[in-house]
Amino acid sequence: ASCDPASTTASTTTATATPSSTTSRSPGSGGVGSSPPPPRRPEPPATIPLAALEILPDGTVSARHVQKADVALELSLNLRDLRVVDPTFRNESPVILARPTALVIHLVHVRVLVTASRVLLFDPHHPAVAALTPRLRARLLDAAHPLPFEMRALEAVLVDVCCGIREEVARLKPKVQAALHVMSKEGEFGGHGVTEGLDALLPLEMALNELAGSVGMVRTALNEVLMSDEDMSDMYLSWKAATGEERGVDEHDEIEMMVEGYLKQVDAVVYDLGRLLRAVKTTENVTQIRLDASRNRILRLEVFLNLGAVSVASAACFAGLFGMNLLSGIEEDPYAFWVVSGASAGVALVVFRSVLMYLRWKRIFS
Amino acid sequence: ASCDPASTTASTTTATATPSSTTSRSPGSGGVGSSPPPPRRPEPPATIPLAALEILPDGTVSARHVQKADVALELSLNLRDLRVVDPTFRNESPVILARPTALVIHLVHVRVLVTASRVLLFDPHHPAVAALTPRLRARLLDAAHPLPFEMRALEAVLVDVCCGIREEVARLKPKVQAALHVMSKEGEFGGHGVTEGLDALLPLEMALNELAGSVGMVRTALNEVLMSDEDMSDMYLSWKAATGEERGVDEHDEIEMMVEGYLKQVDAVVYDLGRLLRAVKTTENVTQIRLDASRNRILRLEVFLNLGAVSVASAACFAGLFGMNLLSGIEEDPYAFWVVSGASAGVALVVFRSVLMYLRWKRIFS
Amino acid sequence: ASCDPASTTASTTTATATPSSTTSRSPGSGGVGSSPPPPRRPEPPATIPLAALEILPDGTVSARHVQKADVALELSLNLRDLRVVDPTFRNESPVILARPTALVIHLVHVRVLVTASRVLLFDPHHPAVAALTPRLRARLLDAAHPLPFEMRALEAVLVDVCCGIREEVARLKPKVQAALHVMSKEGEFGGHGVTEGLDALLPLEMALNELAGSVGMVRTALNEVLMSDEDMSDMYLSWKAATGEERGVDEHDEIEMMVEGYLKQVDAVVYDLGRLLRAVKTTENVTQIRLDASRNRILRLEVFLNLGAVSVASAACFAGLFGMNLLSGIEEDPYAFWVVSGASAGVALVVFRSVLMYLRWKRIFS
Amino acid sequence: ASCDPASTTASTTTATATPSSTTSRSPGSGGVGSSPPPPRRPEPPATIPLAALEILPDGTVSARHVQKADVALELSLNLRDLRVVDPTFRNESPVILARPTALVIHLVHVRVLVTASRVLLFDPHHPAVAALTPRLRARLLDAAHPLPFEMRALEAVLVDVCCGIREEVARLKPKVQAALHVMSKEGEFGGHGVTEGLDALLPLEMALNELAGSVGMVRTALNEVLMSDEDMSDMYLSWKAATGEERGVDEHDEIEMMVEGYLKQVDAVVYDLGRLLRAVKTTENVTQIRLDASRNRILRLEVFLNLGAVSVASAACFAGLFGMNLLSGIEEDPYAFWVVSGASAGVALVVFRSVLMYLRWKRIFS
Amino acid sequence: ASCDPASTTASTTTATATPSSTTSRSPGSGGVGSSPPPPRRPEPPATIPLAALEILPDGTVSARHVQKADVALELSLNLRDLRVVDPTFRNESPVILARPTALVIHLVHVRVLVTASRVLLFDPHHPAVAALTPRLRARLLDAAHPLPFEMRALEAVLVDVCCGIREEVARLKPKVQAALHVMSKEGEFGGHGVTEGLDALLPLEMALNELAGSVGMVRTALNEVLMSDEDMSDMYLSWKAATGEERGVDEHDEIEMMVEGYLKQVDAVVYDLGRLLRAVKTTENVTQIRLDASRNRILRLEVFLNLGAVSVASAACFAGLFGMNLLSGIEEDPYAFWVVSGASAGVALVVFRSVLMYLRWKRIFS
Repeated sequence: ASCDPASTTASTTTATATPSSTTSRSPGSGGVGSSPPPPRRPEPPATIPLAALEILPDGTVSARHVQKADVALELSLNLRDLRVVDPTFRNESPVILARPTALVIHLVHVRVLVTASRVLLFDPHHPAVAALTPRLRARLLDAAHPLPFEMRALEAVLVDVCCGIREEVARLKPKVQAALHVMSKEGEFGGHGVTEGLDALLPLEMALNELAGSVGMVRTALNEVLMSDEDMSDMYLSWKAATGEERGVDEHDEIEMMVEGYLKQVDAVVYDLGRLLRAVKTTENVTQIRLDASRNRILRLEVFLNLGAVSVASAACFAGLFGMNLLSGIEEDPYAFWVVSGASAGVALVVFRSVLMYLRWKRIFS
Repeated sequence: ASCDPASTTASTTTATATPSSTTSRSPGSGGVGSSPPPPRRPEPPATIPLAALEILPDGTVSARHVQKADVALELSLNLRDLRVVDPTFRNESPVILARPTALVIHLVHVRVLVTASRVLLFDPHHPAVAALTPRLRARLLDAAHPLPFEMRALEAVLVDVCCGIREEVARLKPKVQAALHVMSKEGEFGGHGVTEGLDALLPLEMALNELAGSVGMVRTALNEVLMSDEDMSDMYLSWKAATGEERGVDEHDEIEMMVEGYLKQVDAVVYDLGRLLRAVKTTENVTQIRLDASRNRILRLEVFLNLGAVSVASAACFAGLFGMNLLSGIEEDPYAFWVVSGASAGVALVVFRSVLMYLRWKRIFS
Repeated sequence: ASCDPASTTASTTTATATPSSTTSRSPGSGGVGSSPPPPRRPEPPATIPLAALEILPDGTVSARHVQKADVALELSLNLRDLRVVDPTFRNESPVILARPTALVIHLVHVRVLVTASRVLLFDPHHPAVAALTPRLRARLLDAAHPLPFEMRALEAVLVDVCCGIREEVARLKPKVQAALHVMSKEGEFGGHGVTEGLDALLPLEMALNELAGSVGMVRTALNEVLMSDEDMSDMYLSWKAATGEERGVDEHDEIEMMVEGYLKQVDAVVYDLGRLLRAVKTTENVTQIRLDASRNRILRLEVFLNLGAVSVASAACFAGLFGMNLLSGIEEDPYAFWVVSGASAGVALVVFRSVLMYLRWKRIFS
Repeated sequence: ASCDPASTTASTTTATATPSSTTSRSPGSGGVGSSPPPPRRPEPPATIPLAALEILPDGTVSARHVQKADVALELSLNLRDLRVVDPTFRNESPVILARPTALVIHLVHVRVLVTASRVLLFDPHHPAVAALTPRLRARLLDAAHPLPFEMRALEAVLVDVCCGIREEVARLKPKVQAALHVMSKEGEFGGHGVTEGLDALLPLEMALNELAGSVGMVRTALNEVLMSDEDMSDMYLSWKAATGEERGVDEHDEIEMMVEGYLKQVDAVVYDLGRLLRAVKTTENVTQIRLDASRNRILRLEVFLNLGAVSVASAACFAGLFGMNLLSGIEEDPYAFWVVSGASAGVALVVFRSVLMYLRWKRIFS
Repeated sequence: ASCDPASTTASTTTATATPSSTTSRSPGSGGVGSSPPPPRRPEPPATIPLAALEILPDGTVSARHVQKADVALELSLNLRDLRVVDPTFRNESPVILARPTALVIHLVHVRVLVTASRVLLFDPHHPAVAALTPRLRARLLDAAHPLPFEMRALEAVLVDVCCGIREEVARLKPKVQAALHVMSKEGEFGGHGVTEGLDALLPLEMALNELAGSVGMVRTALNEVLMSDEDMSDMYLSWKAATGEERGVDEHDEIEMMVEGYLKQVDAVVYDLGRLLRAVKTTENVTQIRLDASRNRILRLEVFLNLGAVSVASAACFAGLFGMNLLSGIEEDPYAFWVVSGASAGVALVVFRSVLMYLRWKRIFS
C-alpha cells in the first residue's frame, strides 16, 4: 500500500502531452472502463510543484516552484527523467542524464537540472544543497573560465560531491581508527575495552558500508557518462544552442577529461574506504581469535583451580574421617594429630600431583 | 521420477505442427520402435488448457481457457516459449521474450502474452495477478498515451513488478532493523534479547536472500532486453502489424528509455537490499565478538569465584583438622579457638592472595 | 606415477595417421633415440576398444566395441577430441564440440558422438546412460519432428541432462531443508538436535557444492556453444551432408533457440542451488551465534551456582569452626546452637548478596 | 571543513589562462556577485611553489621551485593534471598520464613530469625519491641506450617502483611467516604463543592489505596505459618533437613491450601477496578451530574434575554425618571407624562411577 | 637491499647491442656522470652464463652454457624476454611469449626457448626438468608427427606441465580427504581427532592454495595465447623459416586446437581444486559449529554437576551444624542421628530440585 502507480504512469508520458492532460488522465482513464483500478495508496497529487532555485548566467538567484510537467514540456524531457531530480523519490540511483536540451543530474543529495541558459537546483533547503548554492553561483559567474556555462555547473556539482564524500570519509576515519585501536590494545581478557570498542564500531561500520555503497553508485554514474560517446558530445548544450547543429560523436575532449578527473578522485575515495573496511574486518577477526586464545588460557587456569579444589576437598574429607565420633584407636596418641594433619596435607598434594601427571602423560596438558 | 520428457519433447515443436499431432506423437513414436521409453513419471496431460484472462484494446476482459498448442500455432511461437508463461513450471527464470508476433513476459508472479491486439494474462487467480488486472486494463484503455498498445501492456507489468518488489522491501526492512536493534542493544550477556533477535532474524534473512535473488533475476531479464537491439526493435508489434515491414534494428528509443528507467529502479532496490544484507552481516559479526568478549569477562569472574571456593575450602579443611578427635594439645587453651579461627581465615586469605599474585606475576591476569 | 604420456601423445595425432601407427609409434619413437623416455606409469594399452551403443536413424540399436583411432580416422577427428567421450578420462570437463562431421558431446555422465547418420553412445552400462538410451532412440525415430537427426539427438541429451540435474536438486532439497529445520529449531542449548542436523548437513552441503560445480560446468559448456556462431552453424550436420556446402555463419536459429532454452533451465537450477547454499550458510551462521548466546546464558548460570557454592562453603566453614575440639566458651549455652546455626546461614546469605552487589556495582552483571 | 574548492576550482583551468589570473580569480569571482562563497576552509595559497629537481639530458641536476601554473602554461597542460604530481594531494591514485608534450607520472611515492628534454622530480626530499634520483640520472645519461630520453625516464621510474614493491614484500614476508609459524605451532592450548603471534600478525596483516591495495592501483595504472593505443603512441615525445608530426596510433611497440614487462612483474607481486594473505587467512581459520577443539578438551577435563569434586564432597558429607554430636549407636564399635571410612570412600567411588555410566548411557560422553 | 637495477637496466636493451657492451655499460654509464648510482645490492654479474640443454632435431642432446646477451643477439630477442627463462628470477609469472624467431616458454618449473631448429632447456638440473628431457627428446624425434618441430616441443611441455599439475592434485587429494574424514568423524567432543586432523590439514590447505594459485597462472598464460590471433600465427616458426613470409593472422587452427585442449585440461584441474577447497572450507565450518554445539552440551553438564556440588555442600553444611560442639538439645535422642541424616539428604535433594525447577520456570533450561 505504498506504491504510486499514478505518478509512475505519468512518468513515461513524453512532454508533447499538455500538462493538464497529464494530471487529469490517470483518474479519467479509469472512468472509461467500468470501475477504476484500485490505487495502491491515495495518489500523491502529481501537480504538487517542486521547490527549486533558479540561477541565471548573470548570477540572479530566484526561488521558484516548478511543475514537473511544465518543465518537461518546455525542455522536451520525459516526465520519467524529471523523477531523478524529484526529492520525493528518495531511492533513485545517482545518475547524470544527457538529454538534447538539458543535463539532469542527481548525485548524493544534489539534484540539478542544467540547460544552456539556466540552472535549476532542487530541494534547496537541504543543508548540502544550501551550501552548494553560493559556490555554484560563483563558478557560473566566472566569465574567464574556459568551459561553457553548463559544464561549469556540472563541474561545480562534481567538486561539491567529491568534497562532500571526502569530508565524510575524513570524519569517519579517525573515529574508526580510534575504535580499532581500543579493540586491538585491550583485546586480551575481554575487558570493557573490546566491548566499548565494538559498541563504537558497529554504527561506524554501518556508516562505512553505507558510504561505500553510495560512493560506488556515484562512481557508476560517472563511469556511465564516460562509457557513452554520444552522451558526452550531447552535453555540449551551449555549443548546440549556439550553432544549432549536432555535435560530432567524438568531439568531447573537455568533458571527458573533466569527468575522468573526478572519477579518479572518487576512485581514490573508494580505495580509501575499501582499505578502512578491510582494516575493520581484519581487526575484528584477529580480536576474535585473541579472545579465543585468552579464553583457553582462562579455562586452563580454571582447570588448575578445580584441581586445587578437589585436592583440598580430599584433604578435608580425610580430616573429616577422623572427626567422626567413632573409635579410630589413635585418639590418645599424642603425635596422631600431627601425623594425620600431615597425612591430610599429603593427600591434597598427592591428588594434585597425580592428576597433573596423569594429564601430562595423556598429553592433555603440555 | 519427477521429470517430464513428454512436455519437454513437445516444447521444441514449432507451431507448424497441428496440436493434435503434438499430443499423439509422444506415445506414437514410442510405438514405432520395440518398446516405448520408460517415462520418468506419468506424463502430465499436455492438453490441459491454461486458465487465462484476455484483455482486448477496447477494455473487454474475458476469462478463457487456452491450449498452449493452439496459441503457439496461431502466433507462430515455439511451444518452448509458452512454457515461460505456464504457471505449472514454477522454476522458470524471469524473462521477456521478443518474438515476431508477441511478447512473452514472465516476471516474478506475472505471466503475460502480449500481441499487437490483445493481452493474455495467465494464472489469473494469483493475488498479485488479480491485483494487476484492473491497472493493466486502465493502462491499455488510455488512448491518450503516446506509447502503442503492446508497450503500454509491458509498462503496466513493469510498474507492477517494480512496485511489488519495492513493497516487499518496505515490508521486510523495518522488521529487519527492529531485529538488528534488539541484537545490538542486548548483545551484552547473551540474555533473551540476542536469542529473540536471532529467532526473528533467521527467517527475515532467508527472505532477504530470496528477494535479492529474484530481484537479481528480474534485473537480468531487463538487462538482456537492453543488450539486444534486435529484440528491442522486434518489440514494436503494432508498428510491424500496421506497416507490415521489418523495423530498423536501431529504431527503439522509446522501448530502450522505458526499460532503462525501470532497470534503474530495480538497481536502486538491489542496492537497498545489498545494504540491508550487509547491515545484517555486520551486526551478526559484531554481536558474535561481543558475546565472545562478554564470555571472557564471565569466565574471568568464574576464576575469581573458583579461587574463592578454593580459599574457603582451605579454611574449612584447616578447621576440620582441629575437629578431628585427636589430641592437638591445645584443647584446653582458652584462646586457641580464636587463634585457630583467625588462622583459618588467614589461610583463606593467604591462599586467595598468593594465587592471585602468582597469576599476576605470570602475567596471566592483568 | 599416474600420468599417461602415451595416450596424450597420440591424442594430438590427426586421423590421417593409421591406427596401427598410432599404437606402435610411442615405443617406436623411443627406440630411435638412445633410451626410451621413462614412462610415468605402465601405459594403458591405447588399443583397448571402447564399449558403445550405436543407434541408427531406423532405430536399430547395436552394441559395438570401437577403437578410438578408427573412429577418428573415419570422421577426420582428432584423437584428442575423442578423449572427451572416453569414460576412462574421468576428469574431463563437460563440453559440446562441433566438428565438421560430428558432434562430440560430454555432459555429466553422458558421452555421445553424433554424426548425420548415427549416434554412438559411450559408457552404455552407466545407469544414467542406460536410462537415456530408449528415450534417445524414441526421439531419433520421431520422423514428424521438425528438427534434423543430429539435433534431435542433441536435444534428447539436453533434456536428459536437465532432467537429471533437476531431479538431483529435487532429491537434495527436502533433505537439506529438513536438516536446516532441525538446526534452527533446536539450536538453543546445543542438544542433540544441532549435532544431528550438522551430521546430516555436512554430506548434503558437500553434495550441493559438488552439484553446483558440475551444473556450473554444464552451463559453461552450453554458453560456449552460444558464444560461437561458427560452432552453431557447423552443427547442421544433415544439412551439410545433404547439400555438401558450407553453411552461412549466421544461419543457426533453431540450434540457438534450442540451446538457449536449455541454458535458461540450467540457469534456473543454478539459481535454485545458490539459494539453497545461501540458506545453509545463513542458518549455520545464525546457529553459531545462537549457540554463542545460549552459552553465555549457561555460563552466567554457572556464575550463580559457583557463587552459591562459595556461600554454602563459607557457611560450612563457619560451622566447622565450632566443630573444632577447642574451647569456644559457649559450649554450654543452650541457645548457642541456634544462634550459630543462624549465623552460619547468615554468612552464606551475606557472601552471596555482597558478591552479587559488588558485581552489579562494577556493572559486570546487569 | 577540509575540502579545497579553490585549488579544485583552479584545477580545471586550462593553461591558456595566465597564472596570475588563476590565482586572483577565485576570490575575484566571488566579488562580482553579492557575497563570496563560503570557503570550506582557509584556502591553501595556490601559489605556493612546489619543490622539484630538474634533470636535463646532459645530467645536470638542479633544485628548483616551480609554480604549477607556470608549468601548466609552458607545457599546455591542465592544472588538474599537475595535481597528480603535487605531493600536497596525498590521496591521488597512481596514474601515468600521456599528454601531448609531457608524461605526468605518479606511482607510489614517485611524482615525475617528463618532457622530451627534461625531467622534473617532485617531492625530492622523500627518501624514496632521493634514492631514485641518482639512478634516474644515470639512466638518462646512458647514451648507448636504444630508447629515447622520455622512455628511459619512465623505465627508471618503473624499475624503481617495481623494486620498491618487491623489497616491501620481501621485508614483510619473513615476518608474516614467522608469526604464522608461531601461531600454528603453539596454537594448542592458547598459551602466549598464539597471543604473541596475533599481536605480531595484526599490524603485518594491515600492512599486507595496504600494500596489496597500492600494488593493485599501480597495476591498474599500468594496465590503463596498455589499454589505450592513443596514449602509448602519444608517449613518443622525442619523436614528436623531432618530426613535428603526429605518430600513428599503432606505432608503439617499444613502449608496449616495456610496460607489459613491468606489468608482468607487478602481477607476480600481486600473486605473491595474494598467496601470503590467503596463508594468513587459512592459518587464522585453522587456529580458531584448534583453539575451539582444545577448549572442548579442557572443558571435558573440567567435567571430570567437577565430577571428582562432587564425589569427594559426597564422601566428606557422609563422614560429616558421623561427626555430628548425635547418637549413631556405633560409637563404641571398634571396627566402625574403618567400616565407615571405607563406606565413605565407597560413596565417592559410587557417585563417580554411576554419574559417568549415566553420561555414557545417555551418549553425552563417548 | 635485494633489487637488481643492473640486470633490469640491461633487460630492456634490444639485441642490436653487442653482448660485451651490455656488460660493460652498466658501470661505464655510471662513470660518465659524477658518481655512480648507489646499487641496491652488489650487482649479480650479468655475464654469468646460464646452464642449458640444447636439443637438436636429430636428437642430439648437449649441455651448454649460454650467455643471455648472445642468445638475445642471435635471435633478435629483448634481454627482458630472456629473463623469463632465467631460473635466477624465481618470481616471474608463467608465460608463453611468441617472438618472431622463437617461443619463450615458462610454465611452472619448465623454462624453454624454442626456435625452428633447436630447443634450449634451462635449469636442466631441476628434477622436473630432468624428467621432462627424455620425453621432450622423444617427441621431437617423432618424424611421423603431423605437427612441426616447434609445436611438438610446445606440446611436450604442455603435456608435462598438465601431468605434473594433475599428479600434484592426485597426491594431495587423498591426504586432504583423509584429514577431512578424521575431522568430520571425531569432531564431537574435540578429542585428539580434530586436533590431529587440523594439524594435518593446515599444511595441506596451504599447499592447495599454492597449487590453485599456480594452476590459475598457467591457465592465464594459456588463455593469453588464445586471446591473441597474432601470437598464435607467429608461433609457426618452421613455416615462417621455410617460406620466409609472414603468416596470415587467422591461420592458426592447429595451435589453437592444441592450446585449447590443454586449457580444458587445466580447467578441469582448476575445478577439481576449487571443489577440494570448498570441501575443506565446508568441513572446517561445520566442525566449528559441531564443536560449539558439543561445548554447549558439556557446559550444560557442568551446570548439573555444579548444582550437584552445591546440593552436597548444603547437606554437608547441615550435617556440619550438628557437628558443632554446641548444645542442640537432641544429643541424647536415639533417633536424632537418623532423622538428621535423612534431613541432610533431604536438604541436598530440595536444593537440587528447587533450583532446577526455578531454572525451568525461568525457561533457562528446557
